[in-house]
Amino acid sequence: MDIATLIGLGGALAMIVGAIMMGGDLLAFVNIPSIIIVLGGTLMCALTMQRLHVVLGAIKVAAKAFTDNLDPAEDLIERIVTLSVRARKDGMLALEREPIGYPFLAKGIRMAIDGSTPETIKAVLATEMASMRARHERGQAVFKFMESTAPAMGLIGTLIGLVQMLRTMNDPSTIGPAMAVALLTTFYGAILAFVVCGPIARKLENRTSEESTLMRITLSGVMAMVSGENPRSIREQLLCFLAPELRPTDEEEGG
Amino acid sequence: MDIATLIGLGGALAMIVGAIMMGGDLLAFVNIPSIIIVLGGTLMCALTMQRLHVVLGAIKVAAKAFTDNLDPAEDLIERIVTLSVRARKDGMLALEREPIGYPFLAKGIRMAIDGSTPETIKAVLATEMASMRARHERGQAVFKFMESTAPAMGLIGTLIGLVQMLRTMNDPSTIGPAMAVALLTTFYGAILAFVVCGPIARKLENRTSEESTLMRITLSGVMAMVSGENPRSIREQLLCFLAPELRPTDEEEGG
Amino acid sequence: MDIATLIGLGGALAMIVGAIMMGGDLLAFVNIPSIIIVLGGTLMCALTMQRLHVVLGAIKVAAKAFTDNLDPAEDLIERIVTLSVRARKDGMLALEREPIGYPFLAKGIRMAIDGSTPETIKAVLATEMASMRARHERGQAVFKFMESTAPAMGLIGTLIGLVQMLRTMNDPSTIGPAMAVALLTTFYGAILAFVVCGPIARKLENRTSEESTLMRITLSGVMAMVSGENPRSIREQLLCFLAPELRPTDEEEGG
Amino acid sequence: MDIATLIGLGGALAMIVGAIMMGGDLLAFVNIPSIIIVLGGTLMCALTMQRLHVVLGAIKVAAKAFTDNLDPAEDLIERIVTLSVRARKDGMLALEREPIGYPFLAKGIRMAIDGSTPETIKAVLATEMASMRARHERGQAVFKFMESTAPAMGLIGTLIGLVQMLRTMNDPSTIGPAMAVALLTTFYGAILAFVVCGPIARKLENRTSEESTLMRITLSGVMAMVSGENPRSIREQLLCFLAPELRPTDEEEGG
Amino acid sequence: MDIATLIGLGGALAMIVGAIMMGGDLLAFVNIPSIIIVLGGTLMCALTMQRLHVVLGAIKVAAKAFTDNLDPAEDLIERIVTLSVRARKDGMLALEREPIGYPFLAKGIRMAIDGSTPETIKAVLATEMASMRARHERGQAVFKFMESTAPAMGLIGTLIGLVQMLRTMNDPSTIGPAMAVALLTTFYGAILAFVVCGPIARKLENRTSEESTLMRITLSGVMAMVSGENPRSIREQLLCFLAPELRPTDEEEGG
Repeated sequence: MDIATLIGLGGALAMIVGAIMMGGDLLAFVNIPSIIIVLGGTLMCALTMQRLHVVLGAIKVAAKAFTDNLDPAEDLIERIVTLSVRARKDGMLALEREPIGYPFLAKGIRMAIDGSTPETIKAVLATEMASMRARHERGQAVFKFMESTAPAMGLIGTLIGLVQMLRTMNDPSTIGPAMAVALLTTFYGAILAFVVCGPIARKLENRTSEESTLMRITLSGVMAMVSGENPRSIREQLLCFLAPELRPTDEEEGG
Repeated sequence: MDIATLIGLGGALAMIVGAIMMGGDLLAFVNIPSIIIVLGGTLMCALTMQRLHVVLGAIKVAAKAFTDNLDPAEDLIERIVTLSVRARKDGMLALEREPIGYPFLAKGIRMAIDGSTPETIKAVLATEMASMRARHERGQAVFKFMESTAPAMGLIGTLIGLVQMLRTMNDPSTIGPAMAVALLTTFYGAILAFVVCGPIARKLENRTSEESTLMRITLSGVMAMVSGENPRSIREQLLCFLAPELRPTDEEEGG
Repeated sequence: MDIATLIGLGGALAMIVGAIMMGGDLLAFVNIPSIIIVLGGTLMCALTMQRLHVVLGAIKVAAKAFTDNLDPAEDLIERIVTLSVRARKDGMLALEREPIGYPFLAKGIRMAIDGSTPETIKAVLATEMASMRARHERGQAVFKFMESTAPAMGLIGTLIGLVQMLRTMNDPSTIGPAMAVALLTTFYGAILAFVVCGPIARKLENRTSEESTLMRITLSGVMAMVSGENPRSIREQLLCFLAPELRPTDEEEGG
Repeated sequence: MDIATLIGLGGALAMIVGAIMMGGDLLAFVNIPSIIIVLGGTLMCALTMQRLHVVLGAIKVAAKAFTDNLDPAEDLIERIVTLSVRARKDGMLALEREPIGYPFLAKGIRMAIDGSTPETIKAVLATEMASMRARHERGQAVFKFMESTAPAMGLIGTLIGLVQMLRTMNDPSTIGPAMAVALLTTFYGAILAFVVCGPIARKLENRTSEESTLMRITLSGVMAMVSGENPRSIREQLLCFLAPELRPTDEEEGG
Repeated sequence: MDIATLIGLGGALAMIVGAIMMGGDLLAFVNIPSIIIVLGGTLMCALTMQRLHVVLGAIKVAAKAFTDNLDPAEDLIERIVTLSVRARKDGMLALEREPIGYPFLAKGIRMAIDGSTPETIKAVLATEMASMRARHERGQAVFKFMESTAPAMGLIGTLIGLVQMLRTMNDPSTIGPAMAVALLTTFYGAILAFVVCGPIARKLENRTSEESTLMRITLSGVMAMVSGENPRSIREQLLCFLAPELRPTDEEEGG
């Protein structure tokens, strides 16, 4: 479980709440209409820009990103190398009953067993990668859109408050509190944008980039297996995708 | 009908109206000159930057995006597979009288029947895709331009109000209401930009990207039909364009 | 004549003037030193960033964009098809005395008559297209630069006014009018940037993109003529560059 | 000498000084600590982001850009054509003792004389072009960085002034002058960013792009000479890099 | 040691402290809750967007960038030339026991000795380069994210302070000091973003670009050695990566 992201989000919110409570009353920062206009308005605009199921899908994917982790690339490489040893000894067909463990790798190997040409395997796996990226980017786009819309909704709410306050400025003692309430929507907009949606959008981007690396490793590995390369050389090639400090053999990084 | 976008736009505006009415009088937020300067000024600037028929076309396309939906990719794939079964059994000519249903697919098949080479078919369909994208991007550019111009017109209107207020600041009791009116153009500019034009521009982008996917599926399908591929393998290849959860067979996604 | 752009620019300025006159005196918005600092400063900065003849050239090109129109792509396609019919019947040499009408098309045809290879014709026409784009982008860059510099000059002018006002704040009744004058440079900067330079920069971009389409149609047409393609098939290929609703035959668009 | 840039920079600063003097005392806008924090802080941040010799090199290159001009492309083309006439008559070796005048052209010709293959000549000249661009972009990046850092340093300085003023707000008559001083750092930051660093960064970009065009012309010319093309055809090809109005023969531009 | 970056960061902070002390008490600018909300909140958001080990890795890499320097490209080129002389005389195998000194170069040479084909060597070294860039960009992304998040946390903190101040505005004499404290988070956010994270992110970018150049030189050099090119010609080719003034022979730069 990727607990750091939960700590990050929870910690940032806790710091904000803590800062509020040091200076006074937390309830003074809770204003239901302001929350509705910022949170509701941002979600409504997201519905305008994208279909309902994509918006819900983006939220579901984000929740998933918080709770489970990708397999480490080291394990994937070891698995590919083990399978390539087997394939070299007994032929690709020997992998037919093998539980592969990685669905994308399994797809490539099944195609090879079914006799698809290397070009077809490469084209099919590359299409899979491209449509995975396109799907994920669609979800990230929802969060990036909410990141840029939330401060705008905050501004709109604050303008409503300011206009109402300015029109009835007869009692100076009410100006301060009215303006405080008006500023709350800006405050909510900033939190929704910069503490919630922005970091989640980037988190999803990072996850997509990690998944892409795993898929690129798999693609290189399947291509190498199909062309019957030496397992030691396959391993060497795939390890280049890892940071030098993660590689089992102690190579130094170029530079 | 893509009702979610109507709900999104209507809901966001309803929330803003609701927030205003909770705090006072809705009419205080209606100021005809401010609406003219923001809405009219933004449209005038759009006319400066693009021909009249493109601006009108963009508005028409946006309206269309709200009312009708694209065919689902699953149906297109099933249609291509059905046609490829027929073509494999009876030859491409057998498709001559077949109602194809999808104009872009029909164009590719007609070219194949007419004996165009695969390279020509690919080149013509790719030009069609590229000019569809170029046309759509021209429309999106109008909405993106209005998204960035509307807050500027709001600022210009607010500056006009502020300058007029500051020049005649002899009666302090009039400052508040005058400033409230001055802020209304900023308020309209923000709504026009962030609630209307921005989400619509992104909606059109998403629609273009979905249409591109449908066209890419069609292009791949026609190419595969022309080279006489196995319908089962065509299906397999085209399904890679779908999200794993939309595929009829239960494949797991790689990663 | 592209009258819409004149209407757009004139209309936006008229709306701003109208909004000012509804609220008071137009002369209160005229301040010569503020105009000098915003307009003069922006032009001076443009001189720093680009040679005098490019800045002047950009202004001349912009003026041209307001007064004349490109030929419609439909006419160009018909002309190419007519010429290809002639060339197919009587050979390319038959076009030697033909008035071509389109200089870029004429250049391609003259090279074909002179016996240049298709590769050379393609390379020369592509270089022409690339240097047309580079030249136009240099002009657009001047307007984009002025679009981002004008608000900065407005800010600088407003800061000068504010500093002078704040230093001598002994008579409160002068604060308002002094601040009104200080805000005028921001007002001019916003108009110069968002009503004038921004839309013109985008107008020029759109024009370049239309010219590129015309040149791409020409290039495709010349290549097809040189390789002796069937005029009907040339027409079919070139029509793909047009929006479906502009094509003479009633094809439906894919989707 | 490229005098327009000096006029641009000098003129913009003169206009700002003029605007200040029309409204009062120039000395009121001179505040040594504010200058130190904006200018010094921006330079210090530039040192953090890039090595000392690159920062100094960028300033040296900028100074050079103000004082000398590139050779006109027309002259370069004529020189290449003259040399190609000679080479066609007497062979490439005849150019051995010829003073070439353009170092980059000289390098290409020397390689051809030394018997390098066209592929090697192309690869070496392309590497030269790419590293010229990389070097220049490094210098431009310093000015772009200072353009975005200067307003931030201005904001930091203004915040320091505001905090100090707000803490000791017992005498209202001191508020104005204190705030005026606080605003001066914002004022300096805006001038440093938008009048000095921004235009210079763009000036350097334009110069790089002109130098690239000269190098592209040279590369095309050398390749054509090596493959023994007809001087008239070389001239024709190279003239495509120029704007139509700069070409000796009166061709019209395509459109 | 790259001492300029330490001077840059230290100097910028010293200037800010100096400016504060000239105007009053340094302690007035220290506010522990404000520091916690800006620094802690920014770090927490970084944790949300990226795994803990990447965030820590980015900080470690940044620290490394401050303390050590890359080898100069001139030395790398001389080393490659020396090795190529040896390889040409005694064969690639003669380099087997040679201490290479540069790990990335060593990897390429070892592959050549092991009999890998030029294509494999190129592919493996290119994968290494691409994953080096991807790793470094991940670290830079952390600093860029903090650069854009820090001002947002500053704004959130300032809004908290403003809302609390505005709600209890009964004693005017407390408004100034309360607002001064509220502005401190904006001040900290600006320093963290524009003086610390921004320049460090760009510093890391510059370092990655220098490392890429070294790797590109190595890749070109190894390819040339493997194809048995003349050492003098290898040297000539590699020197093109250097600025003309760094090249031992006195070539002039093209232009």
